[in-house]
Amino acid sequence: MKYDLIIIGGGPAGLTAAMYASRYKLNTLLITKIPGGVASTASKICNFPTYEDISGFQLMKKMEDQVKSLNVQLVYDEVIKISNFRIQTAKNKEYEAKKIILALGTERRKLGIKNEMQFLGRGLSYCATCDCQLQKNKDVAVVGGSNAAFSSALLLADYANKVYLIYRGTELKAEPFWQEQVKKNKKIIILLNEEITQLNGDKFLESIKLKNKELKIQGLFVEIGSIPDTKLAQQLKLKTDSKGYIITDKQQRTNVKGIYAAGDITNNSLKQIITACGEGATAANSVYQDLNK
Amino acid sequence: MKYDLIIIGGGPAGLTAAMYASRYKLNTLLITKIPGGVASTASKICNFPTYEDISGFQLMKKMEDQVKSLNVQLVYDEVIKISNFRIQTAKNKEYEAKKIILALGTERRKLGIKNEMQFLGRGLSYCATCDCQLQKNKDVAVVGGSNAAFSSALLLADYANKVYLIYRGTELKAEPFWQEQVKKNKKIIILLNEEITQLNGDKFLESIKLKNKELKIQGLFVEIGSIPDTKLAQQLKLKTDSKGYIITDKQQRTNVKGIYAAGDITNNSLKQIITACGEGATAANSVYQDLNK
Repeated sequence: MKYDLIIIGGGPAGLTAAMYASRYKLNTLLITKIPGGVASTASKICNFPTYEDISGFQLMKKMEDQVKSLNVQLVYDEVIKISNFRIQTAKNKEYEAKKIILALGTERRKLGIKNEMQFLGRGLSYCATCDCQLQKNKDVAVVGGSNAAFSSALLLADYANKVYLIYRGTELKAEPFWQEQVKKNKKIIILLNEEITQLNGDKFLESIKLKNKELKIQGLFVEIGSIPDTKLAQQLKLKTDSKGYIITDKQQRTNVKGIYAAGDITNNSLKQIITACGEGATAANSVYQDLNK
Repeated sequence: MKYDLIIIGGGPAGLTAAMYASRYKLNTLLITKIPGGVASTASKICNFPTYEDISGFQLMKKMEDQVKSLNVQLVYDEVIKISNFRIQTAKNKEYEAKKIILALGTERRKLGIKNEMQFLGRGLSYCATCDCQLQKNKDVAVVGGSNAAFSSALLLADYANKVYLIYRGTELKAEPFWQEQVKKNKKIIILLNEEITQLNGDKFLESIKLKNKELKIQGLFVEIGSIPDTKLAQQLKLKTDSKGYIITDKQQRTNVKGIYAAGDITNNSLKQIITACGEGATAANSVYQDLNK
């Protein structure tokens, strides 16, 4: 059986593409590694229209439930190979499609310190939302200077005793909205022009070494951005920008006929849930248009 | 006083632009003729992510309330002239801005029959959501072949005795999702290849003349699409496509420096609430980037 459309990725772009594909009555399969994508790990979302304040987990659950109520097949699996519109997955399944939308999003960037993975789940985390409640009365640190780092620091300050916000640069990238709130919060200590050079601890993380000092902390949250997964783009010979983001036109078409991309994996100028949703809808519409040509 | 940003239009694109502008701490004014734009007249919305079913009025009220909770000035007025980033309104106010986002949306297309305006509010309506409850046990008609016409016909079928769906073409443009529902509904009678040539009635609409027959109806709902308001685009010498939609790049910039456009007024490939929201966010981000250059 050949699907009209296979969507790879179940974040905001993939789920919205699925909603629209269902309206267009396309025979659609959505394959995603995890429900909701990276968006579902966001601590607090205040800029999705109609919600003044909602967690990423709640928001994405609503979207996924909506898709589940529609006529779309959803499977949790990882795509490892695409060739000639045939898709192979980690669970050893094969699927075939007329059109493919890549909505893979991005993966979290790692610190690149040699024992980083050893402390994962033992003090080190890439998701403040998931692990904030474990930080009661602890001293913790967040690495990064972006919105994600700032909102994570604020969330952690609700639980932890002290939150160090460590940034290697001197000019913070977070929006003024977040900067203002962090600066008002007395639990948060900003350390600029600093870098983590070493992680110390026996079983659990106990301290981190910066350029010139050591901080005793029990929790470390890494929020230094995301990188696109370029594996499938390379297999498909898609054009990407210098950072590996897939180049699309305004209709979300890539340079390869029948392959579309939407959301954070593309070279869009703003990576937000609302923009990813819009791109997902547009991609599904382009698929529908192209199938009817 | 000179605003950082003036947004013209208070539909999905304008309101989302305002949300983002507020996060970027831009000194922002939003000017709109009516709250929520044309979106707030939609009968039933099933494709805005996270809502399986909501009225346009409710959805847009949530967005407007969210903007009102932020640091954005919102005025109900109509912009009649823009020159050199100075804005004049119908209420005789003057405002000045560093950057302007046009999010004016579109206006409803009229039938173009000479006594059309005479029956407005007297049987003729451009908004099924607004006037559906007045149609109990009446025979009514909807003109149009698009999603809006179909969803209006379905809504009206909940109240009216009989709903004629009149379309001048033979190939319906509504998405399969809507077509299926309409075809299942026994109250709705589809008349293809038909056109309204005359509106009859004394004080109130009593019948309409088609090519070869007359239909006695008490309600007529005009859903034949929308057209962009080109007045401001012309004043600003913005490039538009052949239908008058403002041409933007992927960052929502127009050909004139400092002027951005988002939502239905642009030459985007899909005119939906979710895509308009995404474009509004992107436009605000571009304004923020350009102001910090």
